[in-house]
Amino acid sequence: MLMKNRLISDLKKNIPAYNILTSLEERYVYAQDATNIRQIKNLPDAVVFVETIEQVQAVVRLANKYKIPVICRGAGTNVVGACVVEHGGIILNFSKMNKILEINAENMTAKVQPGVIVGDLQKRVDEIGLFYPPDPSNLAVSTIGGSIAQSSGGAKTFKYGSTKDYVIDMLVVMANGEILRTGANTIKNATGYNLGSLFVGSEGTLGIVVEATLKLIPKPEAKKVFMAYFDTVKDAVNAVNAIIEQRIFPTTIDFMDKNAIQTVEKFYPTGLFTDKDAALIIEIDGFAVAMDYQEKIITNMLEKSGAVAIQASHNDDEYNKIWTARRSSMGACAKLKPNVTTDDVIVPRENLAELVEGIRDICSKYNLTPCLVGHVGDGSVHPQIPIDYRDEEEYKNYKLAKSEIYDLTARLGGILSGEHGIGLAKRDYIHKVINSVAIEHMRKIKKTFDPNNILNPYKIF
Amino acid sequence: MLMKNRLISDLKKNIPAYNILTSLEERYVYAQDATNIRQIKNLPDAVVFVETIEQVQAVVRLANKYKIPVICRGAGTNVVGACVVEHGGIILNFSKMNKILEINAENMTAKVQPGVIVGDLQKRVDEIGLFYPPDPSNLAVSTIGGSIAQSSGGAKTFKYGSTKDYVIDMLVVMANGEILRTGANTIKNATGYNLGSLFVGSEGTLGIVVEATLKLIPKPEAKKVFMAYFDTVKDAVNAVNAIIEQRIFPTTIDFMDKNAIQTVEKFYPTGLFTDKDAALIIEIDGFAVAMDYQEKIITNMLEKSGAVAIQASHNDDEYNKIWTARRSSMGACAKLKPNVTTDDVIVPRENLAELVEGIRDICSKYNLTPCLVGHVGDGSVHPQIPIDYRDEEEYKNYKLAKSEIYDLTARLGGILSGEHGIGLAKRDYIHKVINSVAIEHMRKIKKTFDPNNILNPYKIF
Repeated sequence: MLMKNRLISDLKKNIPAYNILTSLEERYVYAQDATNIRQIKNLPDAVVFVETIEQVQAVVRLANKYKIPVICRGAGTNVVGACVVEHGGIILNFSKMNKILEINAENMTAKVQPGVIVGDLQKRVDEIGLFYPPDPSNLAVSTIGGSIAQSSGGAKTFKYGSTKDYVIDMLVVMANGEILRTGANTIKNATGYNLGSLFVGSEGTLGIVVEATLKLIPKPEAKKVFMAYFDTVKDAVNAVNAIIEQRIFPTTIDFMDKNAIQTVEKFYPTGLFTDKDAALIIEIDGFAVAMDYQEKIITNMLEKSGAVAIQASHNDDEYNKIWTARRSSMGACAKLKPNVTTDDVIVPRENLAELVEGIRDICSKYNLTPCLVGHVGDGSVHPQIPIDYRDEEEYKNYKLAKSEIYDLTARLGGILSGEHGIGLAKRDYIHKVINSVAIEHMRKIKKTFDPNNILNPYKIF
Repeated sequence: MLMKNRLISDLKKNIPAYNILTSLEERYVYAQDATNIRQIKNLPDAVVFVETIEQVQAVVRLANKYKIPVICRGAGTNVVGACVVEHGGIILNFSKMNKILEINAENMTAKVQPGVIVGDLQKRVDEIGLFYPPDPSNLAVSTIGGSIAQSSGGAKTFKYGSTKDYVIDMLVVMANGEILRTGANTIKNATGYNLGSLFVGSEGTLGIVVEATLKLIPKPEAKKVFMAYFDTVKDAVNAVNAIIEQRIFPTTIDFMDKNAIQTVEKFYPTGLFTDKDAALIIEIDGFAVAMDYQEKIITNMLEKSGAVAIQASHNDDEYNKIWTARRSSMGACAKLKPNVTTDDVIVPRENLAELVEGIRDICSKYNLTPCLVGHVGDGSVHPQIPIDYRDEEEYKNYKLAKSEIYDLTARLGGILSGEHGIGLAKRDYIHKVINSVAIEHMRKIKKTFDPNNILNPYKIF
């Protein structure tokens, strides 16, 4: 307690008092993220809003002095507990470091602070004909810092890659308070080890990203989305293969299973076909002159693969209507029970139908009814499982189902996380998919970079 | 000597004798790569052709036992001395581990051994409508292993990224002989640290890649290349900006300067315009129906930017004719003097014209006449400098010019290598662009992964 008082007093020497929260209520608020953890057992000692790089350095130095954890937080939309404290410590809140420092049209780069909201950046670069593709589903609130920490993907990963493919340079405050620069303002770099890619996805355990330069690309002229229904998930996957064989490269190939379709239609009725086993949502982009050509091929391949009720968007309204159905899935699912969990298992595409069937079987065995949505192009599934945490039996079943889903994923040559990260939620399962030599080397890097284990300790492994 | 004999004898217990070269002549042959080093001072103790992963493990274990270096080699096309020995050791030759193990059309992945030739892989996947974009200029001979070691780029990096963007999984033999698996056969992965990207570009200093799974994409239906001449490099860069502002996303935007044009025309005359200061070579790809549309915009923007003699390819012959001019540059340059050196400095595109002018000024000051080619899209320049290594004065001038070019690159916010790597050739200059905290952390990783410093020691930093 005495140490905590001294820490707070030291913090106040470096950070304006209005940026330090220490009341029980405030600490309680920041003990949660979007992970929907069952029970808050641990509170942070303080929440500190940082406004400058120097302040981040000062906090890290104090954390080192007192050997207490520092956990970074942007919008708190994390779904694997990566920004939740387990052993007390300081929540470093980046929501005030939210400036777009530069958008350089000629270099096609944006320099941003970590608290910038992804959707805000996308809008700003869109205005000058440029495009930042990574689009986590919560992009209206989630931050670039969080995207970097978790290596976020989104619906457009199939064509455009994920966050790691767009970060070309970063300033990182290391565990000792020093600043490491990872790259240069160039889109190519083969100069020494690729430290940048090591920090992306490291969930704040190796260093604290305080500034990032992102690569932008020319904004495609036109886009169009298709929705189609199938009798089986396998038919839907086959349709995707047939389309790609025609050399169409969609930006997005998402799917919803029957339960997801029915749940969305129940709470937000728009006339979805609720008797079909799966729906595909396919988006293409490119030159306006090539849209009709692609539409013909896609429609043809969808029909040949047994799709029914094929819709194509011909204006913004139609485009938004189709996407609203897909995006409402999590919200609709949340109305079924007091809680809803999500996940992001991923397998090679040839095993996706088997993964989907397997998840449904496992959930059925444990009396759970998941809404399954995901990205067919990437081979990833988001099982959204509505549960009631107060129901001990159901919670136990959920934990058993989760473990079996990971076993299945591993058996199908997949991996535990495609875009959410590991955090606390999957830490106990990572050995199912990562070999022991790799985990050992991850631990070695962690120990070398952060010998006092103050940066988001005990996350990932 | 006794130790060397024991090593060779131990090697023979693990590797067939016909795969071990130890004669002076043979060791001499493998003391060089394509770096064009001035003088061979150091020979390997042995050259070992490996055929299996187990053999690689056995050699690494022996190297650890005898504390001698292991340096990997594919086709030996490296231009920074990354596969040259400095302190003896074993050259691990991967040219017999050259099998394409699997091409999976549904997953859009290829699993390959490190000795596979990049061009061979491209041809194989092309036959089934898929595309592996990284295309180092020597792709007809250079290997995937080398591409991974050096994080190779190529002409298409502007649109498609470099090798690191296509490696999704690897098996890596670590310094202690253990096998580390970096990822999974999935195109997205946020499961633990991104070890894969750390190995890509690490020049064989952290581990030995023995198998790689590569991401493929749908092959674009059509392609077209344009060539145009400008009075100044700045005009050429401005033309590029104007084209991108129209939301055209070329695969390639290369340039040649006056001396490169004149040199190519001198030795391989095809009617190039030798009185112009710069030529652009722009390639686009995509759907056939969108080619005319793009051609109109590109031609229009080129004309508006002052381009003359604009050519566009309308068939394979015309396509190859334009590319042959650009690709002949190094060969033509080599005819001017007994030796030719190359480099791959890179800056933000807004500073490219200044870099080109600066390199010409520096070379002129030192009586050197470089052929400058490069990738405008990426902001990178390959100064190809013909010199005579026997001329002490010229060699000294070349070294001075090289150092000044790196200073200029650093001043313009650039970095020493975009796609060749650092190796020996740039090791002494890396501090000009990489901050000391970053270098210190690279060293820490190296020491942690390879405590006996046997894997390609003393390269990069």
